[in-house]
Amino acid sequence: MTERLLVIGGDAAGMTAASQARRLRDRADLEIVAVERGHFTSYSACGIPYYVGGDVADAGDLVARTPEEHRAKGIDVRPATEAVEIDTGRGRVRLRDLATGAETWEGYDRLVVATGSVPTRPDLPGADAEGVHGVQILDDGLAIRRVLERDRPARAVVVGGGYIGLEMAEALVKQGLNVSLVDGAEQPMRTLDPEMGALVADALRGIGVELHLGERVEGFETTGGRVTAVTTAERTLPADIVVLGLGVRPNVGLARAAGIEIGTVGGIVTDRRMRTGTDGVWAAGDCVQTRHLVSGEPVAIALGTHANKQGRVAGIDIGGGYATFPGVVGTAVSKVCHVEVARTGLNEREAAAAGFATVTATIESTTRAGYHPGATKIRARLVAERRSGRLLGGQIVGEEGAAKRIDGLAIALWNGMTVEQMTGLDLAYAPPFAPVWDPVLVAARKAAELVEKDLRS
Amino acid sequence: MTERLLVIGGDAAGMTAASQARRLRDRADLEIVAVERGHFTSYSACGIPYYVGGDVADAGDLVARTPEEHRAKGIDVRPATEAVEIDTGRGRVRLRDLATGAETWEGYDRLVVATGSVPTRPDLPGADAEGVHGVQILDDGLAIRRVLERDRPARAVVVGGGYIGLEMAEALVKQGLNVSLVDGAEQPMRTLDPEMGALVADALRGIGVELHLGERVEGFETTGGRVTAVTTAERTLPADIVVLGLGVRPNVGLARAAGIEIGTVGGIVTDRRMRTGTDGVWAAGDCVQTRHLVSGEPVAIALGTHANKQGRVAGIDIGGGYATFPGVVGTAVSKVCHVEVARTGLNEREAAAAGFATVTATIESTTRAGYHPGATKIRARLVAERRSGRLLGGQIVGEEGAAKRIDGLAIALWNGMTVEQMTGLDLAYAPPFAPVWDPVLVAARKAAELVEKDLRS
Repeated sequence: MTERLLVIGGDAAGMTAASQARRLRDRADLEIVAVERGHFTSYSACGIPYYVGGDVADAGDLVARTPEEHRAKGIDVRPATEAVEIDTGRGRVRLRDLATGAETWEGYDRLVVATGSVPTRPDLPGADAEGVHGVQILDDGLAIRRVLERDRPARAVVVGGGYIGLEMAEALVKQGLNVSLVDGAEQPMRTLDPEMGALVADALRGIGVELHLGERVEGFETTGGRVTAVTTAERTLPADIVVLGLGVRPNVGLARAAGIEIGTVGGIVTDRRMRTGTDGVWAAGDCVQTRHLVSGEPVAIALGTHANKQGRVAGIDIGGGYATFPGVVGTAVSKVCHVEVARTGLNEREAAAAGFATVTATIESTTRAGYHPGATKIRARLVAERRSGRLLGGQIVGEEGAAKRIDGLAIALWNGMTVEQMTGLDLAYAPPFAPVWDPVLVAARKAAELVEKDLRS
Repeated sequence: MTERLLVIGGDAAGMTAASQARRLRDRADLEIVAVERGHFTSYSACGIPYYVGGDVADAGDLVARTPEEHRAKGIDVRPATEAVEIDTGRGRVRLRDLATGAETWEGYDRLVVATGSVPTRPDLPGADAEGVHGVQILDDGLAIRRVLERDRPARAVVVGGGYIGLEMAEALVKQGLNVSLVDGAEQPMRTLDPEMGALVADALRGIGVELHLGERVEGFETTGGRVTAVTTAERTLPADIVVLGLGVRPNVGLARAAGIEIGTVGGIVTDRRMRTGTDGVWAAGDCVQTRHLVSGEPVAIALGTHANKQGRVAGIDIGGGYATFPGVVGTAVSKVCHVEVARTGLNEREAAAAGFATVTATIESTTRAGYHPGATKIRARLVAERRSGRLLGGQIVGEEGAAKRIDGLAIALWNGMTVEQMTGLDLAYAPPFAPVWDPVLVAARKAAELVEKDLRS
């Protein structure tokens, strides 16, 4: 008998789950229906700033697979269709056709909830005015670029100094706007320790972004329903366009209403095979919470790479195979103009919050042998546990070729290595690629020395 | 009572050992004498091709620390001084002043043997002719560049297609020479599997190097003691200059004569603290053999990064601290013009020789998100053990930003990860740095699928 798999959400997690299930089970065995509120499937939300900034000419380039391509693979994709209710008892989902408003119930044997995240919108006067943009789905990117081309705004205010905020600030600078960035914290990128965050602030100022740190947004001035300025306690920043980069939270309304378990950090709870506690229901992507493998705590991190992996695991499980998603170590990377920034694991604040006593080493080195053309500065910071010397986290700020070294730290973390063990790692060396002591090794050495010094003290 | 540490060899291993010992023990406690045959200390031999090619203007840039700088740190460095005999019974070394020929005995309480390697010179007619250059010590690099500037040679033949051979071929192309490369093997870089080696051959041809693969050099034609051509069974290649890149072997004559144990692959045998079996004698760098952590076999790999690490471990041990050098996983990296090449662990041939049955996955991907400007092709190949799926090795060929990904594979190898475990790794993702599935993850996925398929077959 043919089973039916219903997937709610047509982006990374949902469509990867659908594709993997299709790879493992043929059409006679498994019918697959995927519904998506928007018009696009399988696109790179992380690519939106590069489309807005003009590095990517065509939004279509961000789409890995269109609904038509999915259909050709035997996945019945229905765009502009919203799931409005899950009835787990009867195994069905109420769908609304967003064009006509018509509603129907669609039955399922297996269900994947991949409803993504919702951007944080401040509960402040004017926050819903025209000209205040979130950056969440590809349609948001299209809307911003349309405004840039049509209205030629001159002044932009970006609210929030996380990854999306920084990337959008750079994109708007590239498009010739005068850009201010406001963040309530004293530094951009709070996932970095302050001294590393300061380097990112310098990079932003270097490309002409006016930073207002430690200032909370108190409201948005509007004229005729259009935003004209952003106000903080300290100042009024005139704005033709405002971009919100205040982070996101898991979009779990539908799941919660259906009685699917929501965890302590607001995401759907799953096991390592992405099964929810509800029979026949999997969840994957930004709407779930997962385990941080260093802190041991639940976390909800919205990131395309996690969504893809989780979708793959769910799809393989539905397809009858075996794969697991054990958790994350909090790796992230970004760049502001020529400055690359990366982090993994816990920073000092996060480590302290998880109850770790730490030793921290910061080093400066170069990406290539110092004498080799193109060598650029790199700063690396390692956080290690006192006594044990176990690596807890790492941060890197540098230029071309610096940031991807974070992968080595992420893999070392994943395997529970100590900084002393890391000093022996056989990393690739040749003058165009690294100094004879790779910066990762220099940092490990310094951290190991500090751990030992601390032991003796 | 003041002890005396004597170090034989003033490059990476020896001077790192001396520096670490000095860091941990002051002058009143430990006198340090280091002897070096050449004129330079602590230089980057790996940088020689970049000096010859002109990327590095001044040979002095390759020197990390001069004899004077070492002396200022309390290390009595004696250049142009050769150790000609070790008398372990009486704890003394016979030294020869290369300027005067005068010999003296120098006593030691602790001895570090860091005598490096000797280049393989073919036992063929004309191999010692003028114009046939090895690339071993910095003086060799100076000699080659002097010849290039003085004699303006037009035609070069490079013998040997390993790392040094390739890097020297490119350096000579950069200097405007017509370059041929001869290697007895069917591909350059035998440490790669043939299909990856073929990409390197293409890159060499792309910069104009004429390749003669599968051809053994049979001799060197000379006129008046100067080389004029290289002959193989198939042809005669006219040459104004010949560069040998035939690899090196540990330089252990001195140690062997002193009764210090030499191992099965020709290097000095040490424990993980770099202690030889002879009381009071440590060894480090190209002259030692070490353990390959994947094959479990002894190996002798001449590489500056190992020499530095081993020197550090020896110096810390002599200094009263504790550090170990557990072995290597065979990581190496190089580039030919814009093509980056890297490898770690075992290739298929090496894995088979070590008794492993393997599954191999090759994938093509891009260094950045496909739509991001600057994305370039990358090809990755993973060798995994059948059944267990344990990673045994990896190879990467690609362009800007490709090769350093080998570090992630090296760390995964180091920790004994399976390719299935690797599919979950939390690697850094953002469009300027990687596709949403990093090439390393794509390769791990494919390898994991092949391992599973093989299990079922």
